[in-house]
Amino acid sequence: RMATGPEGKLQLVQRHVRAFPDFPKKGILFRDICPILKSPAALTAVTDLFEEHVRSRQLQVDLIVGLDARGFLFGPLLAQRLGVGFVLVRKKGKLPGATVSVAYDLEYGTAEAEIQEDAVAPGQKVLIIDDLLATGGTLLAACELMKKQRVDIQGCMVVIELRDLKGADRLKPHNVFSLLQY
Amino acid sequence: RMATGPEGKLQLVQRHVRAFPDFPKKGILFRDICPILKSPAALTAVTDLFEEHVRSRQLQVDLIVGLDARGFLFGPLLAQRLGVGFVLVRKKGKLPGATVSVAYDLEYGTAEAEIQEDAVAPGQKVLIIDDLLATGGTLLAACELMKKQRVDIQGCMVVIELRDLKGADRLKPHNVFSLLQY
Repeated sequence: RMATGPEGKLQLVQRHVRAFPDFPKKGILFRDICPILKSPAALTAVTDLFEEHVRSRQLQVDLIVGLDARGFLFGPLLAQRLGVGFVLVRKKGKLPGATVSVAYDLEYGTAEAEIQEDAVAPGQKVLIIDDLLATGGTLLAACELMKKQRVDIQGCMVVIELRDLKGADRLKPHNVFSLLQY
Repeated sequence: RMATGPEGKLQLVQRHVRAFPDFPKKGILFRDICPILKSPAALTAVTDLFEEHVRSRQLQVDLIVGLDARGFLFGPLLAQRLGVGFVLVRKKGKLPGATVSVAYDLEYGTAEAEIQEDAVAPGQKVLIIDDLLATGGTLLAACELMKKQRVDIQGCMVVIELRDLKGADRLKPHNVFSLLQY
């Protein structure tokens, strides 16, 4: 089956997302993107749709910024398509050299997101990418890291957005582009 | 500057690896691959060189298996080039559904590497990919996961191999292909 238009591509992606009830704990319906990665056609479709969004909105992008660890799965593919570089946002303590970090809340306690100080330069235009938007804590931390470095955020992109959790509200004024909404 | 042949590509990749002394702790010289990701040309060169290795050795590959988290940066790019799927090996507790796990030693204590039970099928041919081979603990755990699932390991691929740590010996009889050796 060929996926020609954007709608066929979206359907292809959607068919490769599974739902697991009560993971990682009771009451959570976990959306699993592993089947997308396992299907060359579905993974190409994700990259196509992200690329089409960037080009149709005529977004200016100097760098794709991806979140540890599942943002690493999709970000380099999009960066290569756009002919731009990819920058890693990692959990604290993983990146060598001078770094900048921002704390964010987890369900219990806090964590810190970190970038290398020389990863981005003031005025650069970036798109931030992750697999899924839930409450938006990590993406918000990534936005704050970018603001600290005086970088121009063009928006956030995710494969899946869990609408009930209102992560997009928390990320305002930054735009969120998601392929699938639940 | 164009990178035409394999040697030009290798030099391009090498110019995008930085060394940080005493990270993550005193006495360790950390090889940083972030500049590769930030350079579209260097990242293309890595994928080209991996692809050329697979094609020149005429390796049969059904799936690329990548290690959490930096294997996720390079694996999907190679999988897309080869037109095959990508499978995630994650730290324990991150993957939903039925999983298979293998313990491996860390400097202090142990960790577990995990895959989804349906990620691979007996007899499939896989290449395992990560950014760097040091002592080989995580790659060995990934190989053991594959053996448990009766998968045919075609080899391990890394961008950087730290020869002194003899990780390749530990991974025998599986072949290790590395782009850069230190």
